[in-house]
Order: sequence, then structure tokens, then C-alpha cells
Amino acid sequence: MLQCRNGKRTGPAAVKMAVDMVEEKLITKEEALLRVKPDQLDQLLHPQFDAKALKSATPLAEALNASPGAGCGHIVFTAEEAVEWDKAGKKVMLVRKETSPDDIAGMYVAQGILTSTGGRTSHAAVVARGMGTPCVCGCSDVKFTGKDEVTIGGKKFKKGDVISIDGSTGRVYGEEIPVTPASVSGDLETFLGWADEVRAKSVRTTASGKTVKGFQVLANAEQNEAPQAFRFGAAGIGLCRTEHMFFEEPKLSSFQKMILSDDTESRRKNLKEILPLQQKDFFEIIKTMEGRPVTIRLLDPPLNEFIQAETPKQAKELAEKLGYDVEKINAKYVELNEHNPMLGHRGCRLAITYPEIYEMQVEAIALATVDAEKKGIAHDVRIMIPNVTTFAELKQIREQAEAVIASVNEKKGTKLKFQIGSMIEFPRAACTADKIAEYADFFSFGTNDLTQTTFGFSRDDYGKFIDSYLDQKVLFSDPFKTLDEDGCGTLIGIAEDKGRSVKSDLHLGICGEHGGDPASIELCYKLGLNYVSCSPFRVPAARLAGAQAVIKSNTGSAKKTAKKTAAKSTAAKKTATSKKTTAAKKPAAKKTTARKTTKK
Amino acid sequence: MLQCRNGKRTGPAAVKMAVDMVEEKLITKEEALLRVKPDQLDQLLHPQFDAKALKSATPLAEALNASPGAGCGHIVFTAEEAVEWDKAGKKVMLVRKETSPDDIAGMYVAQGILTSTGGRTSHAAVVARGMGTPCVCGCSDVKFTGKDEVTIGGKKFKKGDVISIDGSTGRVYGEEIPVTPASVSGDLETFLGWADEVRAKSVRTTASGKTVKGFQVLANAEQNEAPQAFRFGAAGIGLCRTEHMFFEEPKLSSFQKMILSDDTESRRKNLKEILPLQQKDFFEIIKTMEGRPVTIRLLDPPLNEFIQAETPKQAKELAEKLGYDVEKINAKYVELNEHNPMLGHRGCRLAITYPEIYEMQVEAIALATVDAEKKGIAHDVRIMIPNVTTFAELKQIREQAEAVIASVNEKKGTKLKFQIGSMIEFPRAACTADKIAEYADFFSFGTNDLTQTTFGFSRDDYGKFIDSYLDQKVLFSDPFKTLDEDGCGTLIGIAEDKGRSVKSDLHLGICGEHGGDPASIELCYKLGLNYVSCSPFRVPAARLAGAQAVIKSNTGSAKKTAKKTAAKSTAAKKTATSKKTTAAKKPAAKKTTARKTTKK
Repeated sequence: MLQCRNGKRTGPAAVKMAVDMVEEKLITKEEALLRVKPDQLDQLLHPQFDAKALKSATPLAEALNASPGAGCGHIVFTAEEAVEWDKAGKKVMLVRKETSPDDIAGMYVAQGILTSTGGRTSHAAVVARGMGTPCVCGCSDVKFTGKDEVTIGGKKFKKGDVISIDGSTGRVYGEEIPVTPASVSGDLETFLGWADEVRAKSVRTTASGKTVKGFQVLANAEQNEAPQAFRFGAAGIGLCRTEHMFFEEPKLSSFQKMILSDDTESRRKNLKEILPLQQKDFFEIIKTMEGRPVTIRLLDPPLNEFIQAETPKQAKELAEKLGYDVEKINAKYVELNEHNPMLGHRGCRLAITYPEIYEMQVEAIALATVDAEKKGIAHDVRIMIPNVTTFAELKQIREQAEAVIASVNEKKGTKLKFQIGSMIEFPRAACTADKIAEYADFFSFGTNDLTQTTFGFSRDDYGKFIDSYLDQKVLFSDPFKTLDEDGCGTLIGIAEDKGRSVKSDLHLGICGEHGGDPASIELCYKLGLNYVSCSPFRVPAARLAGAQAVIKSNTGSAKKTAKKTAAKSTAAKKTATSKKTTAAKKPAAKKTTARKTTKK
Repeated sequence: MLQCRNGKRTGPAAVKMAVDMVEEKLITKEEALLRVKPDQLDQLLHPQFDAKALKSATPLAEALNASPGAGCGHIVFTAEEAVEWDKAGKKVMLVRKETSPDDIAGMYVAQGILTSTGGRTSHAAVVARGMGTPCVCGCSDVKFTGKDEVTIGGKKFKKGDVISIDGSTGRVYGEEIPVTPASVSGDLETFLGWADEVRAKSVRTTASGKTVKGFQVLANAEQNEAPQAFRFGAAGIGLCRTEHMFFEEPKLSSFQKMILSDDTESRRKNLKEILPLQQKDFFEIIKTMEGRPVTIRLLDPPLNEFIQAETPKQAKELAEKLGYDVEKINAKYVELNEHNPMLGHRGCRLAITYPEIYEMQVEAIALATVDAEKKGIAHDVRIMIPNVTTFAELKQIREQAEAVIASVNEKKGTKLKFQIGSMIEFPRAACTADKIAEYADFFSFGTNDLTQTTFGFSRDDYGKFIDSYLDQKVLFSDPFKTLDEDGCGTLIGIAEDKGRSVKSDLHLGICGEHGGDPASIELCYKLGLNYVSCSPFRVPAARLAGAQAVIKSNTGSAKKTAKKTAAKSTAAKKTATSKKTTAAKKPAAKKTTARKTTKK
């Protein structure tokens, strides 16, 4: 039994066994943490039926447990209905013979998916698992008996009737069973507590010779996701994307009017309408996080994402909604159109041309924090500037932000201070990190954009060639899934070295999607980052993966590193860059390196 | 007189005086080279009238010498006519009251521009100077007397009649005067000869501790521009863009059919039609350059640049031209469309998915070189791979290219070998230059793409914010005009260090538009590059700017460098990166650095 590794054991069983064995003193906590794969935790982290209510329920049918988790909702038979009912605030259960790519939008909003045909690799099963939506597949007891009518295990249901499914067991229930959201509890809570301890106690020396203590897991979340992030044990919010808030009405209309304004005054007027709404969004997150850090990123995407007027119909609808001439909409659409929007007028570049946007956002942040302060709610709010390319952007925006904060403090009689930090997501920011660090209280590496610019790969377009690259082993992993050590890692290493050469305790983290990937988390630990931030759903896996990185570094592979470090310390300030140069000089050796990097 | 510096003196006078003073032993050659600004040479480098023919010609009118150089052509009155007549192989002279942005295409193809109104800053004058097109402005003796009719100095001319203008003197002639293309001769030849000597004898030590000798100026040119590059003293072709050749018919149609093919066999069939035509293009360049290096870059842009079908009219015309259904064209257009084409499916990525394209190009290069060899024409042809992100791309493409070359050698009984090099234009290529150097005979830095990805600025879109950046001094120069030292320079320094750590004599150069900019040329010299490659028209200025960089480095500023170098050599292998970290730590000091970098 002791020899049995984490092969095919299910997540719950693996965690339970690991915890039991530690309690029986058969293995250490560290050994236990290495016995569960981070991805196995996903099985424990789905909504579940209320245990008491489940006891009194009898399943009508049982089929393939295609995507785990419990769901309950009103039956709908088409994806369009699912979307409509969801908009109207109703929770839906999508019941179909099978699903196709046309159903994606409906699948996305459904509490669960039930199909009468198809196996574990059917469209419904694969897509549901990807979305984290509960799904039961191939249920031959589901029979479509007429328009808007179905029988399940012989019992008749109409559109709108409530049923429940459990994608972990494959059971279907003909009634409403309350669902409790996923949370970390029991053995898993114990287990991840150990992981947190290991990370908190960790100490390492970076390639540039700095000592770094601790390794935290934060979450990327806005006000709606923050509660889930909190339940999953995030140490704070590492990325709150403010633009997501602008896509909700009535903020969206005001923001669109702001974009369509012809002068600063008119822009300010429309921004003023958004201010109290955004303030409220921020307050909700601060309250939810109970004093943990909340890192708010100011507007990031280009303005063209807010003016959808590609077709005459879209332009007409937008014009009608805002009460403008359609010509005005079309003219702005053309004006905002960009050849390469990823490399266009976005992020802090918008604050150089239109400072009033960030000024409104900073005011909303300051006022929300004042609200928390006055209500006795603990707060630790940080402001993050995206797309920095030169220190001068950060310097200017920081000065403007501090003026706004000072003005709020004066009006409200508060003495609030905010950390203001910089995203590092373009190679130039990494190369000039010493200059940027003069004006930054922290760095957050935006590894999506950093990967795009370091590789010259657009994430929206690389689908055309990435499969050929992987098939022909030109690349050994998808760089948008696993953070690239040789390119992005080198740049992060340079930024770490330069940034901390100016501020030795500069706080560093990543907030790209790589923050939830175990191999990327290990690289971040090696590079001396203080934290990773990932989607709430990945927080438990990241807590474990981070601990495993610490343990691996402290044992096995760390022995080699110790030797290297000793040798390096004589060479004093030799940088990460020059060290990499001395690595693997022969093609054969290099190939191995590449494979190692990408496989782990 | 000796105190008089290169202020407002005209180019020809400045060069003449510098040469005279050296001959009278009043100053050294080095002092003479520092007395002329590279941009002043432009005035000497325009087409001129045949001296003998000019003697017998009498000007009809004289007005503003708005853009220098002599031109001769058939009178046309609209930009559309200019374009049409040019397509039909006729040289045209555009005669207008004034010009507007709508006339650009016509102005571009014209041998000269003559306007009846407007001053030195009129649209015609400014645009003509930018294009290097001769222009005489504000000529009130030009009177539009009827449709397709004009009088110049009282003499009547109709559309199609031939006239000549001299934009250097402002004179207009009512007859054909033969024009000789611009060339380097007389005092300028002597002067630039000294510049070549200074560069050839130069020796420097790079930041990474390597010794580099010499500093050459090559040209970016295809078959039509190669003769001009040769006349202006280019040491070779640093960049021959093969895609320019594909835009000419009948190559364009075959290439479009290749793109529209559904399988490899069909692609190969269409590529086969292009092969002999591209072979001929290559042969012309090799012959023109008389044994100087000719660096041929394989296909670089994305395929969507060849399928213009945005409007139904374009799609219909293309379908008719190729004899295909319009649906096929539209489907391919949609398929090839990209969100961020700069970061899309282009360059060597096309060779990973469609190896047959580069294979055809390599075969055409090899066959053209065989032709030269058999005809006793000296040749030094090099093959350059664009958009390299990982060594594995280069390794695979190199193996395929060498197989093609071996097959041509076998068929033709030759033993030709080709240098195969890598563009370094994405940060990841710079960071992994040691691995790439294993498979590369040379590196050429593509500073346009490198600037785009290092800054995260799209050259097609940054116009929306660059003026704000310069006005507010967030940037001190346009990074697409003057190569950025802090970001791109750091990456080039890393690539220099890593690349030469594998191959100590690795040949390095740049072939972006920065190659013609004096401040960028000085930075390239400092970074240890072996050459710059620029547009033919900028070659003389670059020959001088390169020499000035050598002289400045050897004297004045070099004294400081010498001290630093001594200090550095004890620190042995400290990299360029770590050195930059130690520079200027205080904001005030840093600002000065930034200003210095960008102003020189």
C-alpha cells in the first residue's frame, strides 16, 4: 500500500489516504503533499447536494457521470432557451439528445447538462468538463415524447419543471435538491492547511542571490467571484479586472458615451455616472475579502472592445440604445479599429491620452476604501497599472493617482494610503525593471501578454500553427498553458534581479492564466516570486502545487541547486542571463533541457 | 572659418570644404568626417540632368526648389493618370495646382511634381521631400488653360507632352533632358572613402568582453534597387525581401493559387510555376552585386497579405483573375483573417506548416547561384530565416534547406554551400540566442518587429498615442525611428553575448529601418554589431554615420569607456544586463540617461 503512488486513485480517496497516513505517522506531511496531483483536487471542488435533502431523494435514472458536481434547474430543451431564461434570472438544466458547438452559450449558463445519448468523449461531456459544468450523458431513460416534453425513468416532465443531476455519480432526480457551492472542508482542509504551512515557511535564494520567504496563492476575481475565491482559501485578490465591471449596464452605456465623447469635459461627465457604481463594486470585494489584499487593475483593454458595430445591425442597435446618430457610431468604430489591437492603444496608454479615466477609477477605489474604513471593515487595497512600457508612464500615472487620493483624504478626513504597482507584461518593462521599481510598490507579471510579445504569438491566432509545432516537436508544450522558462522565464529573472536591486523587498507575483498551472507555479517559485494569482477554481490546486514546488526544491533537486549556488556566490553578481548562457552548449544536451522544461 | 561648424552650410559645400581642408592639411580625415552631418549628404544624392544636354536647354520658368533632384516625364494632370501611365511603362510628370492626400499614389510613381501654387511647406513640397521625388512648387507661370492643357511660361503643353524640372534649382524646361541616376562621385567619393577606411580599421570591445573588428554598411534591396545600392557604395545586400517578388505578376497569381490550394501536391504545383521566375530575380541581384554578400530572406509576411478580398468587388475581381468561384476566395479570406497579424501565422511558422514554400525558395536561390557559378560570375549568397522564436524552427528549416541544396548540387555537379542565418526579431530569440547560434551562421536583428514586441507597440496603430507620449515627454524619441537602447538595446546585448558565447566570430547586423538612422547606427556600433543594412538611399549617410560612431568611440566618450572597460574586465563575464542594472539608480539621473539615449 505504501508503494502505491498517485496513479489512478481518485482525488477524494488520495487526499483521505494521505491525511490518514500522516495521522498514523506512516509518512510526513511533506510526503503526503507529494502524493496527490494538483489536478486531482478538481474532483473535490464541485457544488454538492445538501446532504440532508439528498437522503430523502430517490433517483429516477442513472447514466454516465460525465462531468462532476451537482446541479439543479428548470428544464429547457434548447441552448437559446437556456440563454433567455438565464437572462431572466432563472437557473436552467439543459436537456438534449446531444449537444453541438451551436449550443455553447446555453451550456455555459446551465446549472447542468443531461443528454440521452453520447459517451465520455461526446461533445456534451468534453465541453462540460472544460466549463466545470455538471453533466450526465447517455441517459437512455430520457425520452423526448413531444414538443417541450420529456420522460425521465418513465416520469413525465415539461419545459420549466425542476430536476437535479449529480455529474459525480451520474444520477438524475425528478425534484429540486438544494445545492451547496464548492468549498474546502474536512480532509481537504487539513491537507491544504499543510500545504499553506509549507509555503509560508519556505525560504529560497534566487538566481540573482536574493533571499525570498513565503509563497502565496491569490485569486483573479471580481465582485461575483470573490466569495468563491475566499471559500477556496485565496490569500487575497491578485487581479481584479475593472473592465469586466464596465461591461454591465448601466455602466456599459455610460462608458460607451464616454468613448463617443468629443472632449475631456464630456468624458468626465459620463465617467462621473460610472463612479458610484464602480465604487460599490469595489466595496463589495473589499468587504468579502475581510482585510486580505485586493489588487485592482485599472482599465486594460482597448476602447474598441466596447464599441461593437461591425455590422449595420449592431451599429443601429447601439445608436438607438445611446440615442445617437448611427453615423457617429460608425465613425468612432472606424476610428478605434486597430490592425493589431493587442499592441494598440490600451492599458496605461489610455491614461496618457485620457487621464480622466484612471482618475475616476482611482477615486472610486479611494471612496470605496473610505466606506470600508468608516464601517470598520478591514481593508488592504492595492492599485495596479497595466501595460507599462517605460517608467515614465508609471511615474506620471502614479502622481495623478496620488493627487486624487490626497483630495479624497482631504474631503473625507481620512489618511488612506495605497500601494501602487506595475504590471510587467512587455519585454521592455522587464529590461527596465530597475527604473520602474523606483515608482512601483510591487510588480505583477502579466504572463499572457508577456508570452504573446516574447514569442511574437497572438493568442487569438496561434491556433493556426500551434498543433503543427507540438506535433513536430518544435515546441514541447503550449506556451499559453505552461509558462516558458527559456524566454519568459529569462525576462522574469531579469526583472526580478533589476527590480530587487532597487527595492530589495519588492513584492513580485504573476496574474496570468499560468498562475493555476502546476509546472508554471514551480517555475514561479524558482524565479523568486512571492505569489501566484489564478482563477478561483484553481486556487486549491495552486495551493498544493506551490507546496510541492517548495518541497521539491528543499529536497532532491535542491541538492544540486545548493552546489550550484555555492559556485555562483563566488561569481558574485553574475546575472540570470549570463548563467543561462553557460548552460547546455551541445544540441543534444539542449534538446533534453527543452523537454525537461516543458514536460514537468 | 575654422570655427565654422556644420550648421547651415549646404551638403555639397560642407563636403567640399572638408575635403579641401584635409588636402591643405588643416584638419585630419577624422576631423573632416565629423564636420558633415549624415543627413546633409541627401542633398548630393539625387538624380541630375545630363550636364551636356542641360547646357543646350533654356528654362521656361523658375519657382520654388521644393524637393531636390532632376526629373523628366510626360505631363499628367491627375494622380489616377499618373498611376495608369506608370503601369503602362511611361514616365510621368505630375502637374497640378496643388496636391492633397488623395494624390499620394500618383506622386509616388511620378518622376517629378510641378505645382502652380503653394510654398515650401505645402503638401506637395513636404510629401515630395519625404519621397525623395523632385518637386518645383508655387510656379505662377504654370496656368491651366483648359481640359488636359496647360501653359508654362506662356508656352502651351498638352497631356502626354514631355517636360523636365530641376527641384534643386526650381527650374522648369519644356523639353526632354536626359537624367542620370544619383551616384557617389568627386569630393563625396573621396570623403566617403575615408569613412569606409575608418570603419574598416575600427576595433572595439563589446559589453560582453568580445573584440569586434570593422563595421560595414549593407543595403536592403531587391533586384530593382540593387543597382542603386551598388552605386551608393553598399558593401552588399543585407536584406532582400523575397515577398516583394511575389507581388509581381505572373508570380502573384501563382502564389495566390498556391495559397488557395487544398493539399501539398497542389501547393507544390503552383510553387513550381514561380520557381524559374524567382530564380531569375535572384540571378539579377547576384550579378549586380559582383560578388558582394547577397542576403536573401525567405517569405516573411502572413499569407493574408496576398488575398485581398475585403469587399465583394475585390473578391469578385480576384476570383475572375484566378478562374475560381468567389465562394472559394471568400472562404479563404475568412480563414486567413487574423486578429493580430503581426503576431500571427507568418515567417518561418509558414515553413513549419507548409515546408514546400521555403523549399521552392531555397531551390530558386541554389539554381540562381549555379547559373552565376557556370557563367563565371562571383557570388556570395546567404539565406536568412525570419521570425525565429525557438532554435528548433531553425534546426528543422536548415535541415530541409540543406537537403534541397544537396539535391541541386548533385543534379548540377556543383559544390555550392550557403551560409544560413537567423533573424532575431522577437525577445525570445534574443533570450535563447545561444541555442539558436548552434544552427545559425549569422544573426540579423529585425529591429522593426523587435521594437513592436519589446514595447508592445504596433507600428500600424501607435500613431494614436505616440504624439501624446512625445509631447508629455513620456518617451523622448519615436522608437520606430531611433532604436531604443534601454529595451531593444538590452535584448540585442543579450543576444550578442549569448550568440558569441557559442560562436565567437558570429556575424551580427541589423536590417530594420533603424539601419539608416545615425543615432541607431551609433548604438549598433556600441553593441558590437558587424554591420547595418538600410535602404539604398540611406547608404551614403550610414557610411558616414558609422565612421562618426567609430571616431566618437575612439576619442571623447571613449576615454570614459576605456576606464569602465578596465574595471569591467576584472569582473570578467558580467553581462550587459547586469551592467545596466548598476547604472543610474536615482530617478533624476535616470531621466538624464533617457534623454541622452534618445537625443543623440
